[in-house]
Amino acid sequence: MAFTNTPPRSPFSAAKHAKDGKHHILLAATGSVATIKLPLLARALSEHHPIVSIRIVLTPSASHFLQSQSAEQPSLSSLLTLTGVDGIHEDKDEWSKPWVRGDGILHIELRRWADVLVIAPLSANGLAKMVNGLSDGLLLSVVRAWDTTGLIDGVDGKGRKKRIFVAAAMNTAMWRHPVTGRQIRVLEEEWGSADGIEEEVEGNGQAGPGEGWITVLRPMEKELACGDVGDGAMMDWREIVAHVERHLGLDSKKHTIGTS
Amino acid sequence: MAFTNTPPRSPFSAAKHAKDGKHHILLAATGSVATIKLPLLARALSEHHPIVSIRIVLTPSASHFLQSQSAEQPSLSSLLTLTGVDGIHEDKDEWSKPWVRGDGILHIELRRWADVLVIAPLSANGLAKMVNGLSDGLLLSVVRAWDTTGLIDGVDGKGRKKRIFVAAAMNTAMWRHPVTGRQIRVLEEEWGSADGIEEEVEGNGQAGPGEGWITVLRPMEKELACGDVGDGAMMDWREIVAHVERHLGLDSKKHTIGTS
Amino acid sequence: MAFTNTPPRSPFSAAKHAKDGKHHILLAATGSVATIKLPLLARALSEHHPIVSIRIVLTPSASHFLQSQSAEQPSLSSLLTLTGVDGIHEDKDEWSKPWVRGDGILHIELRRWADVLVIAPLSANGLAKMVNGLSDGLLLSVVRAWDTTGLIDGVDGKGRKKRIFVAAAMNTAMWRHPVTGRQIRVLEEEWGSADGIEEEVEGNGQAGPGEGWITVLRPMEKELACGDVGDGAMMDWREIVAHVERHLGLDSKKHTIGTS
Ligand SMILES: Cc1cc2nc3c(=O)[nH]c(=O)nc-3n(C[C@H](O)[C@H](O)[C@H](O)COP(=O)(O)O)c2cc1C
Ligand SMILES: Cc1cc2nc3c(=O)[nH]c(=O)nc-3n(C[C@H](O)[C@H](O)[C@H](O)COP(=O)(O)O)c2cc1C
Ligand SMILES: Cc1cc2nc3c(=O)[nH]c(=O)nc-3n(C[C@H](O)[C@H](O)[C@H](O)COP(=O)(O)O)c2cc1C
Repeated sequence: MAFTNTPPRSPFSAAKHAKDGKHHILLAATGSVATIKLPLLARALSEHHPIVSIRIVLTPSASHFLQSQSAEQPSLSSLLTLTGVDGIHEDKDEWSKPWVRGDGILHIELRRWADVLVIAPLSANGLAKMVNGLSDGLLLSVVRAWDTTGLIDGVDGKGRKKRIFVAAAMNTAMWRHPVTGRQIRVLEEEWGSADGIEEEVEGNGQAGPGEGWITVLRPMEKELACGDVGDGAMMDWREIVAHVERHLGLDSKKHTIGTS
Repeated sequence: MAFTNTPPRSPFSAAKHAKDGKHHILLAATGSVATIKLPLLARALSEHHPIVSIRIVLTPSASHFLQSQSAEQPSLSSLLTLTGVDGIHEDKDEWSKPWVRGDGILHIELRRWADVLVIAPLSANGLAKMVNGLSDGLLLSVVRAWDTTGLIDGVDGKGRKKRIFVAAAMNTAMWRHPVTGRQIRVLEEEWGSADGIEEEVEGNGQAGPGEGWITVLRPMEKELACGDVGDGAMMDWREIVAHVERHLGLDSKKHTIGTS
Repeated sequence: MAFTNTPPRSPFSAAKHAKDGKHHILLAATGSVATIKLPLLARALSEHHPIVSIRIVLTPSASHFLQSQSAEQPSLSSLLTLTGVDGIHEDKDEWSKPWVRGDGILHIELRRWADVLVIAPLSANGLAKMVNGLSDGLLLSVVRAWDTTGLIDGVDGKGRKKRIFVAAAMNTAMWRHPVTGRQIRVLEEEWGSADGIEEEVEGNGQAGPGEGWITVLRPMEKELACGDVGDGAMMDWREIVAHVERHLGLDSKKHTIGTS
């Protein structure tokens, strides 16, 4: 079921929002414990209302973490009370109505709509599927259908690309597994921008034609000599917000909500 | 549930059909919109009855497109009214009966039975799983268990291989994603026949020992300078039928059903 | 549902068992017919009670093979009657209770607990997912979170690694598919120990820092000239038991249960 602020329910269409003058942030989470930070991320970004519009996508695993089991883990639908959060989409929404010719396709509409996709957290499993081109759910279908050429969704016909931020988050041992490094390298070196995060940005949120379309927000790495648990944890949510703000040319707010 | 033309239901066995003198076409579809062409493909191929026998396999995603929601999208079971279509198989059929020693295994039986496997359409997700060796469903298990050596199912003990045709079909941006090119290359250059589609065929539907076992039927590529939607759409279904007919040495019929 | 010998049910915690002085064997099975040998494996290993503790993990596909459909295929829960088998864990156990901060995470607890992980049988699909870093189920999450550095779970701070044994088991054609060889090579040459199975063992069940953490127990290969079915079948279960016994420095028993 999709939760939407605008009754009566009708299928989501990118075209309807194309000229709303807002920055469209597609905020996604996968099945990592760090999904408990999603409410903080959503709230901080929603403070830029009315110049941002936020839509949220979760994998089935991610949604387990937001069932109002604790104060910091409210229900998914409660996120819709944040002004600026305009929809929540889940796997089942792709197939909610028997498709006939002429109907929209949710993952394509969401990709068209989005100016930026922020996957925070990205699980080890999500990383693996993304790099290998699997798309067996709504979020991965958006990622697989991302316009990596900049020629389809590009605003000015010059091949400027929309960006995906991924904030990897996993257990220390998962992070140190050799498969992680190999896959992060694909994102950073093949699909990302080799020259770092900031260089491509001029506040318009799009990269040039020769550049990548992915930015990896690496987990915090606390190289503990004793090998104790440390690295692998998701980057501090305030830093993630700051990356997105800088990317979209939004004024940076001091986000003081919550503790850690 | 498997729909079968032959009551009472008994597990499907390749051996029972080994000497029926027919060309066995395993026709499969994955979760692309182009699955709405499956009825046209099935009908055109079934016109070769009684010298062909057709069995259909669908992924769960694919079956969403055939629920009789429109004239061109009839129900799955309606396909069984086509003479020549002898069975429809879905994921749940693999596990419909608790397996005991001596029982057949559906994906192995289907592979043995098939003279050719035609996956039309093949989704981006199906492509990714196939290339990476995943087999978490009936269709992918058939593909994973395909006799790539020609030594197990080969008719004459000379290692002649049965072929898989895949008609990729996806959104333009999905098609242009770098992961697509990399995976199509594995199918074409490593597993396919490097020298093109037709060379291996002598109307007996099997390739020689040094050759590949996969033919990629590439989507229509309308290189639109403006970058507008175009490539990625499944090859015209009549062309797909023509490839299969040529491969099996069937008389080519003029297939005039439907429009596009 | 987890079956556990110790009512009342409480979440499984590795710490509670850390000092029980036993060898902890995590015995896993994936969706291959060879899962019917799991009861024999479990029984043979449980004969080392009280110096071993065994926990069993199954994929959903694997559990289809143990539903008491025949004498050699008893129900899963019947395995708990074996002294030494202390728990059975399935996918749904990961999410059985809404997670809140402070709760354990089952796949991490199981990894911590385990001195050795034995996946017998490992399906073609399990192999593919493991090599590609997918972790969309409990067993694969344990594998993905394995301490491949030896620095996190290592007993002596010297980076000695715990080992994973995988007994591949699949149809002959699946085994001969080129993707199999490529993936087995990753396990053997990149993640395994290049110098063979035994060299790293001193009866303490851990490899040194420069060494791998995976041992592939290859299927029986009966190179039949005629190409008839043969290779791909899981290594004889008694041999698998012997490998584990040798690895853990357990006295080898003569295991005479069952026939083949
Ligand atoms: C309580 C709990 C916490 C988890 N935390 C993480 C995590 O931080 N990172 C991760 O990669 N996987 C984590 N997992 C495992 C993933 O949820 C699992 O691999 C799942 O299949 C991921 O699905 P998704 O990538 O589709 O969201 C956790 C699982 C559980 C049960
Ligand atoms: C209405 C609709 C149309 C879709 N069309 C395509 C398509 O043409 N090509 C594609 O690769 N995926 C398409 N998808 C996405 C796939 O259905 C999705 O990736 C699914 O997991 C594929 O599963 P399968 O490969 O097991 O069939 C579509 C999804 C929806 C909801
Ligand atoms: C009766 C039956 C027997 C099967 N035997 C095998 C096998 O021996 N090896 C294998 O790789 N797959 C086998 N398969 C296919 C797997 O069960 C299938 O790929 C499944 O998705 C594997 O899931 P898992 O890897 O999560 O356990 C069998 C399937 C069935 C229905």
